[in-house]
Amino acid sequence: MSIAPTVLDRIQRVTQAPKVALHEPTFGGNELKYVTECIQTGWVSSVGEYVNRFERELAAYTGAAHAVVVSNGTSGLQVTLELVGVRRDDEVLVPALSFVATANAVRHCGAWPHFVDSDVCTLGIDVAKLEAYLRDIAEQRNDGCYNRRTGRRIAAVVPMHTFGHPVDMPALVELAERHRLEIVEDAAESLGSWIGDRHTGTFGRCAMLSFNGNKIVTTGGGGAIITNDGALAKRAKHVTTTAKQPHPWAFFHDEVAYNFRMPNLNAAMGCAQLERIGQFLEAKRLLASRYVDAFRDVPEVSMFLERPGTQANYWLQTLLLAPEVAAQRDEILATTNAAGQMTRPVWELLYTLPMYSSCERMATPVADDLAQRVVNLPSSPQLMPGVV
Amino acid sequence: MSIAPTVLDRIQRVTQAPKVALHEPTFGGNELKYVTECIQTGWVSSVGEYVNRFERELAAYTGAAHAVVVSNGTSGLQVTLELVGVRRDDEVLVPALSFVATANAVRHCGAWPHFVDSDVCTLGIDVAKLEAYLRDIAEQRNDGCYNRRTGRRIAAVVPMHTFGHPVDMPALVELAERHRLEIVEDAAESLGSWIGDRHTGTFGRCAMLSFNGNKIVTTGGGGAIITNDGALAKRAKHVTTTAKQPHPWAFFHDEVAYNFRMPNLNAAMGCAQLERIGQFLEAKRLLASRYVDAFRDVPEVSMFLERPGTQANYWLQTLLLAPEVAAQRDEILATTNAAGQMTRPVWELLYTLPMYSSCERMATPVADDLAQRVVNLPSSPQLMPGVV
Repeated sequence: MSIAPTVLDRIQRVTQAPKVALHEPTFGGNELKYVTECIQTGWVSSVGEYVNRFERELAAYTGAAHAVVVSNGTSGLQVTLELVGVRRDDEVLVPALSFVATANAVRHCGAWPHFVDSDVCTLGIDVAKLEAYLRDIAEQRNDGCYNRRTGRRIAAVVPMHTFGHPVDMPALVELAERHRLEIVEDAAESLGSWIGDRHTGTFGRCAMLSFNGNKIVTTGGGGAIITNDGALAKRAKHVTTTAKQPHPWAFFHDEVAYNFRMPNLNAAMGCAQLERIGQFLEAKRLLASRYVDAFRDVPEVSMFLERPGTQANYWLQTLLLAPEVAAQRDEILATTNAAGQMTRPVWELLYTLPMYSSCERMATPVADDLAQRVVNLPSSPQLMPGVV
Repeated sequence: MSIAPTVLDRIQRVTQAPKVALHEPTFGGNELKYVTECIQTGWVSSVGEYVNRFERELAAYTGAAHAVVVSNGTSGLQVTLELVGVRRDDEVLVPALSFVATANAVRHCGAWPHFVDSDVCTLGIDVAKLEAYLRDIAEQRNDGCYNRRTGRRIAAVVPMHTFGHPVDMPALVELAERHRLEIVEDAAESLGSWIGDRHTGTFGRCAMLSFNGNKIVTTGGGGAIITNDGALAKRAKHVTTTAKQPHPWAFFHDEVAYNFRMPNLNAAMGCAQLERIGQFLEAKRLLASRYVDAFRDVPEVSMFLERPGTQANYWLQTLLLAPEVAAQRDEILATTNAAGQMTRPVWELLYTLPMYSSCERMATPVADDLAQRVVNLPSSPQLMPGVV
């Protein structure tokens, strides 16, 4: 029997609205005020006080020593991979279950994604399985960890905190030390997600945040690099701003570099959004509990909840279908979207996309399974109007 | 005798203000209105009506069949070079006299800039000299034009319209056909510049525009690709927006691609700015004539003016020092900047930068000479308050 009508009904009980997006931003704070100030003062472009302030406040909020804002998350990830030493034709360990940008950023460095399986408890990289896999396929040489099969260096691992649920970073940090891998965290989805009292993105050498329109905090489009490594932060700023040496008038650029700046206009919006992240997190947490209550009497599904010892930002609310109803996923998606309640499956697994189908990978039974069973539910914080 | 005090005095006569930037944007039109609308409706991100409208209006204004907005000009140039077929280890002909982004975009494709000299009449590529040079160093093979010395393919040429002054495009188009080179125009500085009744950027296969904060029309940060080639425009949109195939919910991406979108928030500002480009052009043209008048009695300098048959946007006002006072350039820069009248030299020639010093190049005596003699003067349209 189809559970699609029941799923739709329970979503509607929570959202209580005829037409609901998956995730929409809300601008009820100082967004208009700060953006207006940029326009009225003329400081809309890549140098400005809101750029500096947003960087300071992102560092303070995440507890990272430094933040460097950039034009978007994909570009930020490309730059961080290059800065930790990923070179052309290296391999980089990437979850098979991720948005395509994670793999694209690796290719933009000229390196190759090498796909790994997910942990059903975190939705992120399965660290124990990766350890066993590396013992099997990799070997240490003078300058790092090598894939014995391809002969290529495995330079780094990119844990991605899926929908805001933290990867088991303490275990991954130990693995990375043992195998001499750099860690660059893809924290695009996890601003406001913590492991104990440490923010996601502060466990690896550096991390990338995203502020796309669908993220918990948006700048319209944009991202940031966060790191505790002062030298890396300085390099990140330099290479994302054309590598120009300071001078009152001369244009001396000292290396091939990018123009990946975030305009002050967008940073102003980010400052206003970040002021409200506490409310957004509270609303998303409440929304998760409402979905838990609504689906309590539907044994074929369960809400994916944060692990003990972690605090998830619940960026996208995540329903898991039981294996026996996984075949109904597309019907559930069709029914709910047709009724104006926007839902989505997780991404196509990256190794199934044509440009990544011949990349190295381990067997990914858990990711394969999750890809059939995840349904993201409407997640906007303003669905909880008492909070936001 | 130093002419620096005289130059300062003449600039002050024109600007009539104690502290003047080189180029500042002005937002006296619908900028705040349109941006406010984005924030109030929630449409701030990469999909939105202002993105579509800005693309339509850029196409209409330039007469190009298509425009695709992107996150910045450098990224736009990289993408267009890739789309016209520039491959890793190709060479791309680039003026030695340009902003560093022109060469960086070539390197971002994995190709190598090959530097060419400037024409003292246009400040852009000297087409006749390039023709003679190619006859000397290049040969035709099956798949295009090759550098005999390096054995690498010369895939394309990137004319850059310096400070808004058009390169001799009709001649360059003929040369490119003879030598089977693709033309990608770096029109970052030339929105509003025409050759006869054709806008710069519409002579080559495609072109890149920039809307950085210092440009004649700004979006805070951003750029656009313009082209008459419908297939190329479609590809440009696809690869700058993660190459996702349209589907109500599924994430199927069909090639390695970028996230180089322009947010709707920034496009809204661009729409408002573009409404005023007529005023900006009029003000800049008047400003040029004021500088001509002011410097009329200073025989050691001259204003660089548009060539017959072209209309320059006078983006940056350009003073040329006579050879006999070229040695005074730095003193003129120091004196004017110290007095609050911001001036600048032209860029360091690209082949002098450390990362490009071993690239191929022709002898560049004209660029070498111009690099010593150009001084850009305060150029903001609002310096002519009767117009803007």
